Amino acid sequence: MASAKLLAAFLAALLAAAGGAGARELKLELPSAETILDDGMPLIHMLRPLLGSGGRLGLRARVPCDSWRFAVETNSVRDWRTIPARCERYVGNYMMGGHYRSDSRAVVDEAIAYAEGLQLAGDGKEVWVFDVDETTLSNLPYYAKHGFGVEPYNRTLFTAYVMEASAPALPETKRLYDRLLELGIKPVILTGRREDKREATAKNLAAAGYAGYEKLLLKPQDVRVHAVEFKSGERRKLEDAGYVIVGNIGDQWSDLLGAPEGGRTFKLPDPMYYIG
Amino acid sequence: MASAKLLAAFLAALLAAAGGAGARELKLELPSAETILDDGMPLIHMLRPLLGSGGRLGLRARVPCDSWRFAVETNSVRDWRTIPARCERYVGNYMMGGHYRSDSRAVVDEAIAYAEGLQLAGDGKEVWVFDVDETTLSNLPYYAKHGFGVEPYNRTLFTAYVMEASAPALPETKRLYDRLLELGIKPVILTGRREDKREATAKNLAAAGYAGYEKLLLKPQDVRVHAVEFKSGERRKLEDAGYVIVGNIGDQWSDLLGAPEGGRTFKLPDPMYYIG
Repeated sequence: MASAKLLAAFLAALLAAAGGAGARELKLELPSAETILDDGMPLIHMLRPLLGSGGRLGLRARVPCDSWRFAVETNSVRDWRTIPARCERYVGNYMMGGHYRSDSRAVVDEAIAYAEGLQLAGDGKEVWVFDVDETTLSNLPYYAKHGFGVEPYNRTLFTAYVMEASAPALPETKRLYDRLLELGIKPVILTGRREDKREATAKNLAAAGYAGYEKLLLKPQDVRVHAVEFKSGERRKLEDAGYVIVGNIGDQWSDLLGAPEGGRTFKLPDPMYYIG
Repeated sequence: MASAKLLAAFLAALLAAAGGAGARELKLELPSAETILDDGMPLIHMLRPLLGSGGRLGLRARVPCDSWRFAVETNSVRDWRTIPARCERYVGNYMMGGHYRSDSRAVVDEAIAYAEGLQLAGDGKEVWVFDVDETTLSNLPYYAKHGFGVEPYNRTLFTAYVMEASAPALPETKRLYDRLLELGIKPVILTGRREDKREATAKNLAAAGYAGYEKLLLKPQDVRVHAVEFKSGERRKLEDAGYVIVGNIGDQWSDLLGAPEGGRTFKLPDPMYYIG
C-alpha cells in the first residue's frame, strides 16, 4: 500500500509537470495512472528511432536515438552538455512512457536479489551508498518542463527547484532502500550537491519517505573536485572508518567508478544529463 | 569499397549461419543484403518487450527483455550463464536485425571522433587496446546456431569453432581499427583466449583484414586469473613498457574495468554472454 501511495505521488508530480510543459508541444504519450497501477508495470512504448530524419548529415547525425542512449548509458559517450536536439521527443517518451521505469526496475530487482543473497555480518557497519539526483530523488518534474536535457543546464533555475525540496522519490530506489533497512544494511546518501543544499536535501529526502540513513554526505561548498574523485574519496573515508560498502547505486558512471567502488555497482538509467 | 566487401562477407557468414539454425524455428526477421547496403544502415526492428508473457511469476520474470539488456549492458546484472529463455527471440532479433549493428556504430562513431580529436605525440608509443571476441571478430555465426546465448557455454563446440578461424570482422570495429592506423595509433589485441589459440586467432584476424597490429596478447595456458585481473595487468605492463593507452574497446566490462583502463573506454554491445 505504501508503494502504491508512493507511485501515485510520483505520477501526480509528473502529470502536473507535463501539463506545465504543454506549450512545448511534445505530444508525449503519457500513461494514465490507471494503466500503470493496473498490473504494477507501466506500458512500454515502442522506440521510434529517428533514422534518416536528419538527412545525410554524416554518421553521427544518422545514429538512432536509442543507439545514442546505448552509448551514453555504457559510458562510451562522455562530456555531453545536452541531449541531441532530434532526440528530445525520444527521451521524453523514454522518461515518461514507462521504459525508464522498467529499466530502473530491472536494475533494482537485481540489487535486491544481490542484497538478499549476502552473508551479512550484522555488525552495523555494512552500508549501501545511494546517490541523490535521479537515484533517491527524481527531478523528472523539472526536466519535463525543460526539454528532458535538450536545454543546457541552468544553475539558477535548477537550484531554485532543488530549494523547493519537492522532488518525488524514484519508486524503484525507494523499494531498494526499504528492503536494505529490513536487512540491516544502512543507507549512506552521497551526493555532488554542495553543503548549501544540505537542509533542502534532507527536507526533500524526508518528504519522499527516506528515513533512517546513516549519513548524508554533500560536497564541500568551495572545493573544486570532479565527481569521481570526490565520491571515491568519500567512499574511501567510509572504509577507513570501518564501514563495509556492500553496494553502490547511482545514475551516473561518476557515482560508480573509482576505487573503492563498493561490493557491487548498480547503474540506474539517465539519458537526460551527464556529470563527469 | 573495402567496407562494402567487408559488410558483404559479414552478412554472408550470418545468413549461412541462420540457415543452419532453421530447425530452431526462431523466425528471425533477417534483413536482406540489399536492405542493409542500400543506405548503409540496416533496418532497425522494433523491440518487442515480452511484458506479461510469462504471467505473474514475480518481479524478475516480469522484466521486459530490453530492460534486462539495459541492466546487463550497464554491468548491474553480472555472473549470468545464459540469457533468460524467454529472451531468445528478442536477443536473436537484436543481434540479427540491425539494432546490434546500430548500437555498435554509435559507439565506434564516438571512438573515431575521440581519436581524431587527440593531440598525438606521434612517437609510436600511442596504442589502442582491442578485445577479440565480439569486438574485432564476431562469433555471431556460432551463436546464431546456438540460441544467441540461451544454451550454456560449450567449451568443446566453441573451441572447434575458434579453431576454424572463420569468424568475420565486426565491421564497425574494423572501421575504427583502420582509422587508428591512419592516425598513427597502434592497435594492441588483448584477449582472454589462451595461448593454444594463438595461431588460429592470428590466422582469423588476418583473414578478417586486421593487419599491422603492435601486439597480440593472449592469456597464458595454465594461469588461473579472472579477466579483469589479467587484462588490467597486461595494460599495466604496456604502460610500464612506455606505451600510452589512448583508448580501449571491448564488449565485456571485464575488458574495460581495472586500472589502468586507458584514456577512454568504449563498450560494444553483447547481450549473449558474460565474462567476469
